[in-house]
Amino acid sequence: MEKIKILIINPNSDEAMTRAIQENAARYAGERLFVHTLSTPGASPFVATYRDHALAVPGMVQLYRENEDQYDAVIVACHADPNLDLMKEIAEKPVVGISEASMKMATMLGHSFSVVAPGERGIPNKWALIDKYGLRRFAASVRPALGEGDDALIEAGRRAVEEDGAEVLVLGCAGFAGLDKKMQATLGVPVLDGVICALITAEGLVRAGLSISKKLRYKK
Amino acid sequence: MEKIKILIINPNSDEAMTRAIQENAARYAGERLFVHTLSTPGASPFVATYRDHALAVPGMVQLYRENEDQYDAVIVACHADPNLDLMKEIAEKPVVGISEASMKMATMLGHSFSVVAPGERGIPNKWALIDKYGLRRFAASVRPALGEGDDALIEAGRRAVEEDGAEVLVLGCAGFAGLDKKMQATLGVPVLDGVICALITAEGLVRAGLSISKKLRYKK
Amino acid sequence: MEKIKILIINPNSDEAMTRAIQENAARYAGERLFVHTLSTPGASPFVATYRDHALAVPGMVQLYRENEDQYDAVIVACHADPNLDLMKEIAEKPVVGISEASMKMATMLGHSFSVVAPGERGIPNKWALIDKYGLRRFAASVRPALGEGDDALIEAGRRAVEEDGAEVLVLGCAGFAGLDKKMQATLGVPVLDGVICALITAEGLVRAGLSISKKLRYKK
Amino acid sequence: MEKIKILIINPNSDEAMTRAIQENAARYAGERLFVHTLSTPGASPFVATYRDHALAVPGMVQLYRENEDQYDAVIVACHADPNLDLMKEIAEKPVVGISEASMKMATMLGHSFSVVAPGERGIPNKWALIDKYGLRRFAASVRPALGEGDDALIEAGRRAVEEDGAEVLVLGCAGFAGLDKKMQATLGVPVLDGVICALITAEGLVRAGLSISKKLRYKK
Amino acid sequence: MEKIKILIINPNSDEAMTRAIQENAARYAGERLFVHTLSTPGASPFVATYRDHALAVPGMVQLYRENEDQYDAVIVACHADPNLDLMKEIAEKPVVGISEASMKMATMLGHSFSVVAPGERGIPNKWALIDKYGLRRFAASVRPALGEGDDALIEAGRRAVEEDGAEVLVLGCAGFAGLDKKMQATLGVPVLDGVICALITAEGLVRAGLSISKKLRYKK
Amino acid sequence: MEKIKILIINPNSDEAMTRAIQENAARYAGERLFVHTLSTPGASPFVATYRDHALAVPGMVQLYRENEDQYDAVIVACHADPNLDLMKEIAEKPVVGISEASMKMATMLGHSFSVVAPGERGIPNKWALIDKYGLRRFAASVRPALGEGDDALIEAGRRAVEEDGAEVLVLGCAGFAGLDKKMQATLGVPVLDGVICALITAEGLVRAGLSISKKLRYKK
Repeated sequence: MEKIKILIINPNSDEAMTRAIQENAARYAGERLFVHTLSTPGASPFVATYRDHALAVPGMVQLYRENEDQYDAVIVACHADPNLDLMKEIAEKPVVGISEASMKMATMLGHSFSVVAPGERGIPNKWALIDKYGLRRFAASVRPALGEGDDALIEAGRRAVEEDGAEVLVLGCAGFAGLDKKMQATLGVPVLDGVICALITAEGLVRAGLSISKKLRYKK
Repeated sequence: MEKIKILIINPNSDEAMTRAIQENAARYAGERLFVHTLSTPGASPFVATYRDHALAVPGMVQLYRENEDQYDAVIVACHADPNLDLMKEIAEKPVVGISEASMKMATMLGHSFSVVAPGERGIPNKWALIDKYGLRRFAASVRPALGEGDDALIEAGRRAVEEDGAEVLVLGCAGFAGLDKKMQATLGVPVLDGVICALITAEGLVRAGLSISKKLRYKK
Repeated sequence: MEKIKILIINPNSDEAMTRAIQENAARYAGERLFVHTLSTPGASPFVATYRDHALAVPGMVQLYRENEDQYDAVIVACHADPNLDLMKEIAEKPVVGISEASMKMATMLGHSFSVVAPGERGIPNKWALIDKYGLRRFAASVRPALGEGDDALIEAGRRAVEEDGAEVLVLGCAGFAGLDKKMQATLGVPVLDGVICALITAEGLVRAGLSISKKLRYKK
Repeated sequence: MEKIKILIINPNSDEAMTRAIQENAARYAGERLFVHTLSTPGASPFVATYRDHALAVPGMVQLYRENEDQYDAVIVACHADPNLDLMKEIAEKPVVGISEASMKMATMLGHSFSVVAPGERGIPNKWALIDKYGLRRFAASVRPALGEGDDALIEAGRRAVEEDGAEVLVLGCAGFAGLDKKMQATLGVPVLDGVICALITAEGLVRAGLSISKKLRYKK
Repeated sequence: MEKIKILIINPNSDEAMTRAIQENAARYAGERLFVHTLSTPGASPFVATYRDHALAVPGMVQLYRENEDQYDAVIVACHADPNLDLMKEIAEKPVVGISEASMKMATMLGHSFSVVAPGERGIPNKWALIDKYGLRRFAASVRPALGEGDDALIEAGRRAVEEDGAEVLVLGCAGFAGLDKKMQATLGVPVLDGVICALITAEGLVRAGLSISKKLRYKK
Repeated sequence: MEKIKILIINPNSDEAMTRAIQENAARYAGERLFVHTLSTPGASPFVATYRDHALAVPGMVQLYRENEDQYDAVIVACHADPNLDLMKEIAEKPVVGISEASMKMATMLGHSFSVVAPGERGIPNKWALIDKYGLRRFAASVRPALGEGDDALIEAGRRAVEEDGAEVLVLGCAGFAGLDKKMQATLGVPVLDGVICALITAEGLVRAGLSISKKLRYKK
C-alpha cells in the first residue's frame, strides 16, 4: 500500500510545537500515511493575533510552493485556521484546517461541543470561527484554561461538560498533542484533537480523489 | 496492518443496491478496511418516506445487535439518514450517516454545495436534513433529476453548478455508486459520494479512538 | 352540535399516564369534543430515548390504522413528538404533536418561553426539537426538575422565569396533567399544557377543514 | 354551553370588508362562539402602509377599551398585524393577530408555506413579519396577485406551489374571506384564512384559561 | 460651509430630557450641524411601553410635517426606536433611529456589544429590536442598571464587559447624555451614545445625497 | 474648524484607481476632512483573490505604521475588506472597511440591498462577507456586471431592483467612483458608494472620540 503523503504546516516558528505536532501526527499515521511537519519560516513563535496570521503568510505560501509536488495534501495546524481561505485558493491539492475539521467532526458525535482554549485572549476569535463555519447552534461554549498545564485544560473541559452542557470537546490548539486521550479518559466524553481530525479528512479526500473546488471562491 | 472493520447497513431491502454499495465501498476500502454491506430485513425496497424509515427500524437494530461485536464502526447508507439518531444512541461504536458526513465534508471544499436528488419526492426531506445539520447557509440547492439514468443526474448537477452557484455537489442517494467520478469529470467540481465520505469519517473515528458521546443526547 | 372526535395516542404503555392524559383532555373537551386516549401497544412505559420512539412505531401506526375512520384528528401525546413526521405522512386527518403545538403557541403569548422538563436526560433532545421547529430565538431555557413531584417542577419553572427571563412556560411532558393551572397560579405567567394546546389546534383544524399537506414532505 | 365571545377588530374603516370578515367568522363560530366584527373609527379604508397602522391606533385602543368587559378575547383582523404588540400590551384578555396565527399554524401542516398577497406593495412588509416571527426558514415565498379578483389570487397561489415549492398557502389579507376553500379545492394544498386561524387560537386560549404574559414585554 | 440642519425628535414630552439631548447633540454638532431637539406634544413623559410608542405617533408626525422643509434629516431620539418604520415611510429626508444607528455602529468596533438599559422593564423590548436588526449574533447581553444614577449604569456596563464578554457598550437611553465618555474612561471599552451615532449617520447621509428607499417597504 | 485627517489605503497598486478614489473622497471631504489616498506598495494591481489580500498585507501595515501619527482614522478602500481584522487589531485609531460600512448603512435605508459586483469571480466572496457581517437576511442578491463599463453595472443594478427585490444598492468596488449618483438617478433607489460610507463612519468615530475596542478580539 502506497502511503499518502501529508504536509503539516505549523503556522508558527516554534520548533518544540512542531515536534509535538509531528509526534502526534506520526502516531496516527501508522503505515498508511507519511506525515511531515514544518515550522513556518518568518512566523511568530505563537499564533494568537491577526498580526501573527499575517506574518505567517509568506512562509506558509513558500512551504506550500516548495512542497506541493511531494505531497498529496496539506494541513494547516493551528486552531485559528490562519490563512486557510488563502491556502485553499492557491492549492490544487486538498488543504484542511484543524479547527474546521475538528469542529465539524464534533457536531457528528454529540449534541453540542465546546472548545477548550489556551487562554482568554482567543475567545472571541474562536467564536468568530464558529460563526464563519455556521456552527453557533452546536457550540456550547469556548472555555479558556485559567492556568498553565494539562490540569487547567482538563478543568476547563470539565466545566464545559458540567456547566455548559458540552457533549463533545475540541482541543483549541495544535500544541495540546496527546491531551485528547487523557482528557477523554478523565471526563468521559469524546475529545477531539484538531491535527488528528485534519489527518482523517485529508487522508480521506486524497483516497477519494477529492479536492478544493476551483469554481469561484477558491479559484486561483 | 490490521483492517478496520466497517459494517454498512443499507436501510432498504434491495439486494442490487446493497451490491452496488458494497462494490463502491470495497473500491475505497483497499487494504485498510474490511467493509461488509447488508440489506435491512423487513425494510422497503427503496427508502423515500418516513414510513420507509420506520419499517427499517427493527431490521437496522437487529443488524446492529447481531454484528456490533465483529465491527469497529457502522455506516447508515441511505442519503436520508434514516434512524440515525436512534443508531447513534444504541451504539457504543461510531455510527456515521452518509448524508451528514457528505454534506458536512462538502462545506470544507467550496463556497456552497448542492444535493443531486433522485427525484422531486425527496426535495423537502433533503432541506429538512440540511436544516437539521444547520447547513442552510452553505446549501445552494437541492436539484432533482428530471429523468432516469446518469445523464439526467449529471444534468441536474450541471444546473446546480451553472444556475444555483454550487461549487461542490453531493450525490443524494447511496445507490449512485460510481457516478461521483463521472460527474466530477464532466462538470469540473468536486462530487461527493455519501458512502465514501462516511467511510472516511468512520475509519478516522475508529483509528482516533473516538465514538458517539454518551452524555445525554445519545445516552442509551 | 356534533362533537369533534379526537384520538389521543399516548406513545408509551403506561396506563396511569394514559388515564391522566384522558382526564386532562376530557376536562378541556367539554361538550364540543369527544376525546379518547389510548396507550401504545408494545411501547416503553416511559418515552425518553430514541429507542423508545422506535419501539412505539408499530403500535402508533396500528392505533392510527384501526381508528382513523372513527376520528377526525389525532394527537401524539408525548412532549418529544415521537414519530410525528411519520404520523403526519401516513394520515389524511390532521395530526398534531403536543410539543410542536405548545411551543409554537407559547411564542404568541410572550417574549420567550422555557420548557420545564422532567429531568436532565431530555435537555438536549428538547433543544433538538426547538431547533427543528426554528424556535431557538424564542426559547429562554430548558429547565429540568431537580427532584420528584410538583414542587420540583414548579421550582424549575420559577428559575426559568426569574433567572432565564422566560415569560411563558411550557410543560415538557404529557404526564404533568393539571400542573399548568397550579404553576400558573404560583408563578404568574402563562403555563401551557401540551395536550391542551394540541386539542386547541386539532379541533380548530377539523372545524376549518384543514389537514396536513400531501404535496411532498408528508406525501404518503 | 356558554359561548366564547370574541371581538374582531378590523383595523380599517371599510364596512364592506368588516361585513365580509364577520360573515366568514360567523360561519366558523357555529354555536360555540359569539363573534362580532367592528371597523376601526378613524382608520384608513385599507391598511397598506405604516401610516395606516398609526392611523388605526386610537380607534383600535378605543374599541378595546369600550368592549373588553363584554368579550373573552380580541382578534386583530388585518394580515399586517398592525399594532399587535400594543394590543397585547394593553390587554388582559388574549389578543391574536391573524398573520401570526396563520403563519405559525401553516408551519404545522407542511414543509413550507407561501403568503398570497393582494399586491406588490406589501411584499417587503410580509417578509418583515416573517422575520419578526422567526419563520424565514419555513417561508417559500410571498406571491402577489398580478391582477384583480379571485383568479389572480389563485394564480399567485398556483405559482407559489409549482414554482416556489410551497406546501401550504396563507391568505395574506383579512378580506379574502371564503377564498381559502376555493383555492384549496383548486390547488390541492391546505389554504389558511387568517381570521379562521385566529379564531381557533383565541377560542382555545380562552377555554384553556391562557392569556398574554404580563411579565415584561407586554407588561402594561 | 453651510450647516446641515438636523431635527431631533424626542418621542417623549419630558423637557428636561429634551434639553439634555439638545446639549449633547450641540456638543457634537460643532460648526457643521445645526441641531434642534423638540419634545413630542401629547407624548408620555417617558417612553417605556408600546402604549407610549402609540401615544407619540400624532405628535411625531406633526413635528415632522411642520419641520420637514427646514431640516435636512430627522433623528428619532429614543433607544426603543419608536415608530421608526412609520417615520422612514412618511419622510423624504433621511430618518435615523438612535438604537439602530448605535447598535449597528457597535458591531464595527469589536466582537460583541451589550446594551446598558435603564431598568429591567425594557430588556425583552431591547432583544426584540436586536432581533429586528438581525444583531443577535453580535449582542453579548442587555444589562439593566440595578439602581439609580450613573454609578449603577457604569456597574451594569462593567458586568457586561467582565461577565458577558462585551467589547463595546451601547447606552440604551437617549437620556444618558454625557455618560458615554465617563463610562468609556472607567471601563476602557468604546461606549456609544445613540444620539451621537445617529448624528454621524444623518449628517453623512445628507452630505452623500442619500435617503430612505421609496421602493416598497417605506413607500408613502 | 480643524480638519479630520483620514488616510485611505487602496489595497491595490493601481495608481489610476487610487486617483479615482482620492477624487471621489475629496468631493465628499469638503472643508471638514483632509483625505489622502495611497496605493499599497507591493500589492496586486487589482484585488480579486485571497492571494491578493495576502500580497497587500506588508504594504498595508507599512502604510499604517508610517502614517498613523499624521491621521485620525484609516479606511481600507477595497470592497472585499481585505485584512480588515488585522488592520483593526494593529490600529489605535479607527479603521473602517468600505464593504462593512456600506452594507451596514444600506440596511438602514430599505428592506434589502444588493451588491453590484464587477464580475462573477467575486460573487461567493461577497456572500462570505455578507455572512461574516450577519447580513444574509437583508441581502437580496449579489449581481455581477455582465460586461464592461457603467452601462453593464447599471444594468446589473436594474436587475437587482426589478428581479431580486433590492431596495438599496451597494457598489461592490472602490473603483466605481461617481457611479453612485448616476445609478441612483437612473434606477430611483439609494446607491451607496463604499468609500463615502466609510468616510461618514470614520469622520463620525473620530469626532465622537470612538475607536476599535482593544478588549480581546482586536487586542494588539
